Parts: sequence; structure tokens; C-alpha cells
Amino acid sequence: MSDRITVAIDGMGGDNAPSMIVSGIGIAAKSNPDVKFLLFGDERRILPLLERYPMAKAVCETRHTTDFVTNDDKPTAALRGAKNSSMRLAINAVADGEATAVVSAGNTGALMAIATIVLKTLPGISRPAIASSFPTQSGDSVMLDLGANVECDANNLVQFAVMGEVYARNELGLKQPSIGILNVGVEGLKGNDSVKEAANILKNSNLPIEFFGFVEGDDIGKGTVDVIVTDGFTGNIALKTAEGTAKMIAFFLKDALTSSILAKIGALLARPAIERFRA
Amino acid sequence: MSDRITVAIDGMGGDNAPSMIVSGIGIAAKSNPDVKFLLFGDERRILPLLERYPMAKAVCETRHTTDFVTNDDKPTAALRGAKNSSMRLAINAVADGEATAVVSAGNTGALMAIATIVLKTLPGISRPAIASSFPTQSGDSVMLDLGANVECDANNLVQFAVMGEVYARNELGLKQPSIGILNVGVEGLKGNDSVKEAANILKNSNLPIEFFGFVEGDDIGKGTVDVIVTDGFTGNIALKTAEGTAKMIAFFLKDALTSSILAKIGALLARPAIERFRA
Repeated sequence: MSDRITVAIDGMGGDNAPSMIVSGIGIAAKSNPDVKFLLFGDERRILPLLERYPMAKAVCETRHTTDFVTNDDKPTAALRGAKNSSMRLAINAVADGEATAVVSAGNTGALMAIATIVLKTLPGISRPAIASSFPTQSGDSVMLDLGANVECDANNLVQFAVMGEVYARNELGLKQPSIGILNVGVEGLKGNDSVKEAANILKNSNLPIEFFGFVEGDDIGKGTVDVIVTDGFTGNIALKTAEGTAKMIAFFLKDALTSSILAKIGALLARPAIERFRA
Repeated sequence: MSDRITVAIDGMGGDNAPSMIVSGIGIAAKSNPDVKFLLFGDERRILPLLERYPMAKAVCETRHTTDFVTNDDKPTAALRGAKNSSMRLAINAVADGEATAVVSAGNTGALMAIATIVLKTLPGISRPAIASSFPTQSGDSVMLDLGANVECDANNLVQFAVMGEVYARNELGLKQPSIGILNVGVEGLKGNDSVKEAANILKNSNLPIEFFGFVEGDDIGKGTVDVIVTDGFTGNIALKTAEGTAKMIAFFLKDALTSSILAKIGALLARPAIERFRA
């Protein structure tokens, strides 16, 4: 392995793979000229695409396989069968030390299951989590889990808190990120047993973290805390609800702004500002 | 009981009670001149307020009690103690046939617990649910449960589906409302056991309802279905996440629209349209 960072890519995972994947590598290559990519997938489909993206071609090494995981595969089936799927081989590349990270836009459940078995989790962490950072009224926050684990006990939530804190310090650059557990109220007696027990553990632990307590759904947009901890069922639905609400508002706003000549002129004048806001 | 509808009101429940409650009765009296109100609470505080709202006074009968349920009371404590709380007496008024409905802005858990014991649920319905209707890209939808039951089994969800369907037909005026269960994916293998089992029951039942299947968080804003069924934990967080997202977008949009002279002029011209959209 050279000094350059190598990222293993599942070339066949996700909607519009492999063309979307190759096009994505082209974009990534522009902003990360030092990164090398190991691209796993069907070379009969990938090689012609690379011809169209010379920037991607220059930093890509392809590895041929015809097997791939579909979105309908059960995670357990993807794990036990398909030992030569593009997803499996990309994950193996990290285990073998050929790559330092792996990216797949494919079946999330399969990715989590295979990665957990092949790469293992860190000591003290029993389940992986899906995390994402997003803008709020007061800076960026990170939320996890967003769907890897539909059912979580208190220990899972405590471990997500620890992982989220590390992410917020390293990726968001925060010195002492605050952590909240997503709940249906901020009072101690609200919620299910998992969130209540997790809050108790975090409150009474000697972990060097700043535990804020419970937060509610509207605290996500407010940015009340830097790290929002939740189970994968609730987190996935909260994230998609937020996306759906934003789309609905854009829909109504567009409707309102084209409802009269005056509004249209107004929208035209305000357009550069609105475009900046959307970006 | 006269021919007029009588609504029992918990005068001491909610933030800024009783003044907000009395002011609310004044507003309700204007648009519902045929409704009579039975107002339960501390007359030393309520009677002076009614002097300030003569429209409310004209349609209100007060019942004095000094006991009330606070937001910090556990539902079980509110149920067993405080037999003369304003909330309890308002609910009793429905049980006694003095009123046809009861309204409280107070402790939701206590309201649900007391109402369930005093008024019981309909035959075949084991738990009450909190429902709310809201605008979507394609008409109004109703979602339940929004927080009455933090943990729900498949039967609870099936019962919520039936109640939501009745609500959508009667309150939203829909002839054949479609029903979806909120989940982390639309495929049958996604989600926890409760949603999977509830979907199976609804799919194979002979109920005269239109079961759509699973919907995701972003389907709420799209209006994919008319009735969204979920447990109270997820529903409460989804609802508040949507509210928080809307507020965050308004915050960023205001920022963008005041970022330059041109944007300010544009915002001014588009203002009537935007105001209509917000209403």
C-alpha cells in the first residue's frame, strides 16, 4: 500500500449503479487528488464508463466480479451467499489492508451485516450505527443511528453516544460536543425503557462527555445539542420526515411565489438569495 | 342536558392556564355559538378572567375546584390521587352525561390514563391514541398515535388503523381513505416485529379498508396515504421533527431574504403570497 489513501468502492451498489458510482468517483477525484480508488464490479459495464470519466479512470483500479447484492436481498442471505459480490470484495479489501475505507450505496442492511462480520466493531462497541451530519439553526449536528438497528437497548444507545461524540470532535471540529437522547419529552419519566436507562447510564458514568439529557424532535432543527442519539427505527423516520417536510415546504413556497405577477417579480429578485439558501 | 352540545373544559391544564383557556373559550364561542362550556377549575382565578371575556362568560358554566394535575405528575399518580382535580372532574362530566366531549391542554399522559379508566375505550379498542390532521402536498392526512402509547404491539397498530380510517372519513370527508404504516422501508422484510405483524393482519383481514402498505418518513409530507399509523414514540418524534424542520427553514429563509437589498425588495413584493402560504 502506498502513502495515498485507498478507498474500496462497491461499484454495483445503489440506484443507477454502476454509472452513478463512476460519475461520483470523477467528482471525488477532483476534490481529493491524493485518493486512490479500488473499484469492484462488472468490468464489462465499468470499463466503458471509465472511458467517459478520464479523471476517475486516472485514479481507479478495477477488480472484476459479476456477483452483486441487490436491494431485495436479506442481509443474512447477502452475508452467507455471494462471497464474491462487489460489496463483499470491497469490504474484504479493508480487512486485507488493501484499502483504508469502504463505500457502498447499496443494500444498507447487507453492508452493515457483512462489515460487522468481516471488519468487526471496535472493542466495547457491540453494533455499528449509521450517522449523518446536517445543518441546524446553530451549526452542524450529527445524528445516529439512522437505520442500522431497528431495535436498540440502553447499551446500544450509550455506545452510539460515545461514537457520535468522537465523530463530532473529529469531523465537526467541536471541542466538547453536547449529547442528547431523542425522546418524546424532556422529563425523566418520559419515554421507553431503553432511553430512560441509557440516560441514567450516561448521567452517572465517568465518561469525559457532555451529556445534555433528553431532546425532542424539534430540537433536531434547533441544534439544541451537537450529537443526537436514537435507535435506528426512530432515527430513520425522523431523518426522512425532515427531508419530506423540506420538500413539502419548497413545493408550497414555489406555488405561493408563482401565484401572482407581483409574487413572481419578487421571487425573481430574491432568487439569488434563495438559491444560496438551498445550497 | 339541553339540545346544545356541551363541552367539558379542564380550566387548569396547560401552559398559561387558566388565562389561555378562558381566552380560547372566547375564540371558540365566536365560531361555535351553539356550544356550551362546562369549565372546571379555581373560580378565584377563573371568574375575574371571564369578566374580561364576556363572549366566553355568556356560554360558560364554572365548577369550582382547587385541585389540578401538573405536567410533572405521573399519570398513575394523577389517576389514583386528585379525585377532584379539574381534569378528573371534566372527564367525569362526560361519564355522567353532563357533557358530550372533554378538552384539556394539560398533562397528556394523565388525561389518557384518567379518560381510559373513567370513559373506557370502544369495544375492540384496547388503547386510546392521539391523532392530528395536517396539510400535505396532496390534501390533508391524519397521523396516529402521536404520543399516548410509547410502546405498541401489532394489535394496537391495527386498532389505530381502524380509528384513523373512521376519523379520515368523518373529519376529512374522504370516501375511501388509504392507510399506511410508518416504517424504515417499504419492503416487507423491513422494520420491527410490531409493524411487520400489523401489516400482515391488515393485508389479510376482511376489514372494508384500503390498506396501502408501508410508508416512509418522507411520505408524510408527500401525502402518499390519508392515514399514517405509527406507535406513539415514533409518531411524536416525527411530528415534532416536522415542526422543527419547518421552523429551521423559515429561519434560514428569513436570513436569505434579508441578505441583500435586491432580496429584500423581492421579499417585500412576494410577501402577500408568502403570508398566504404560511396561513
